Amino acid sequence: MRASCILLCFFMFLAVSSAYPGKKKQYKPCKELVLYFHDILYNGQNAANATSAIVAAPEGANLTILAGQFHFGNIIVFDDPITLDNNLHSPPVGRAQGMYIYDTKNTFTSWLSFTFVLNSTEHQGTISFIGADPILVKSRDISIVGGTGDFFMHRGIATIATDAFEGDVYFRLHVDIKFYECW
Amino acid sequence: MRASCILLCFFMFLAVSSAYPGKKKQYKPCKELVLYFHDILYNGQNAANATSAIVAAPEGANLTILAGQFHFGNIIVFDDPITLDNNLHSPPVGRAQGMYIYDTKNTFTSWLSFTFVLNSTEHQGTISFIGADPILVKSRDISIVGGTGDFFMHRGIATIATDAFEGDVYFRLHVDIKFYECW
Amino acid sequence: MRASCILLCFFMFLAVSSAYPGKKKQYKPCKELVLYFHDILYNGQNAANATSAIVAAPEGANLTILAGQFHFGNIIVFDDPITLDNNLHSPPVGRAQGMYIYDTKNTFTSWLSFTFVLNSTEHQGTISFIGADPILVKSRDISIVGGTGDFFMHRGIATIATDAFEGDVYFRLHVDIKFYECW
Repeated sequence: MRASCILLCFFMFLAVSSAYPGKKKQYKPCKELVLYFHDILYNGQNAANATSAIVAAPEGANLTILAGQFHFGNIIVFDDPITLDNNLHSPPVGRAQGMYIYDTKNTFTSWLSFTFVLNSTEHQGTISFIGADPILVKSRDISIVGGTGDFFMHRGIATIATDAFEGDVYFRLHVDIKFYECW
Repeated sequence: MRASCILLCFFMFLAVSSAYPGKKKQYKPCKELVLYFHDILYNGQNAANATSAIVAAPEGANLTILAGQFHFGNIIVFDDPITLDNNLHSPPVGRAQGMYIYDTKNTFTSWLSFTFVLNSTEHQGTISFIGADPILVKSRDISIVGGTGDFFMHRGIATIATDAFEGDVYFRLHVDIKFYECW
Repeated sequence: MRASCILLCFFMFLAVSSAYPGKKKQYKPCKELVLYFHDILYNGQNAANATSAIVAAPEGANLTILAGQFHFGNIIVFDDPITLDNNLHSPPVGRAQGMYIYDTKNTFTSWLSFTFVLNSTEHQGTISFIGADPILVKSRDISIVGGTGDFFMHRGIATIATDAFEGDVYFRLHVDIKFYECW
């Protein structure tokens, strides 16, 4: 009997080893958060309210007007308030900090690399993101590459959608954060 | 008998827990992709063809000529075509979007942070990369820190090699993408 | 008896599957490294010694003096020596390469994205980091998002602390690297 158990256990051992990745494949988030963030781009006249600024531009462009050719080559640094709903004036639960780049010459596309710094009664910690953002597509997936605090070692996918935009000055992103690796 | 199984099972449980990382250590990719991407740097005269541009430079340098001191401090934004072979004119299967920085004063070294946006019959999804790129070394490893779509939650290592370069205007990278964590 | 083992094994299988994430939650590093890195910012007069340079700035600022408003919008590119102790003149064990951004208008906060390139008898490989750095806080956690070589596929958390700073020219960071995912 013992022998049969050893044998069984051995096969089970194999099963567990190979089954684990399958387990992860279930595509069901272990944690989910929906947040908004609000970007007000400095345009030379809104210094008091602006939460972001153009800091690099291609030859011939300047730092108060987004560059021609779909803004290709602009780097924007931001420190945007994060809110639980779509109201810019709701109490912020954290800040979205980092940069985005406009990186296509024939359509509006950006590339994002930033961190959510959450500091509320509900969440304390950071979540870092990287990804391509084809702005004109309704919803886009970017990668969550790391986290700290409440999000220690987490990884996942964030689905972002432009919730509002006003000219070249204001936009609001809806961010659906789905963690698939929680610790 | 039951007791012995419990005991065995318990030890097996321990074995599985600690064996799993060992399992991962096999260094065998769960998925592999070989791709090329092509970078044509804007130099003031090739606006129509250029796929990248200098957007930041150290004091004293400009945005059409790479800076002195091994280009230290230049930031280049790119949107480069990705192909299956080494021919710039092959049908692109996606775009490499992001930035690189020249970041050493006494040799050619860059630092990369970018995303492959793949959009072909074979692959739909994104792969994001970060890493140091000691350009003069034949092959260099960078980290694959996340993926979406077909590459949902993937991680791995990309080995990059300079496949061609022409002055300061054109270079082509051979990218051997090895995923070690597939979902 | 066999049946009871099958049953037990089945439950154990479930236990292992769900226990594994719990196992990871032990928060005990599988590897730890403590390193220092040293940043000497170019200020127009220290070209020979400087290891970093301002390469982007908001409107109205320049590339030899950090911008007003808590340096908001400055991007600094760096190639800093890494040492085992807090002595700038100790033999370097590698280079910290990448960039940081000052990204808040009303306090000193930066956002980091960089790679440690280690090259010593003890360690060969790279470690890549991303995260928000609230500089005035004593110790801050950032994410380790990938590694190569000796740090193949590693992930973890780095706790950084400002170990020294001299005006706007020199700072030294103490970096406590804790890997929680080793391969």
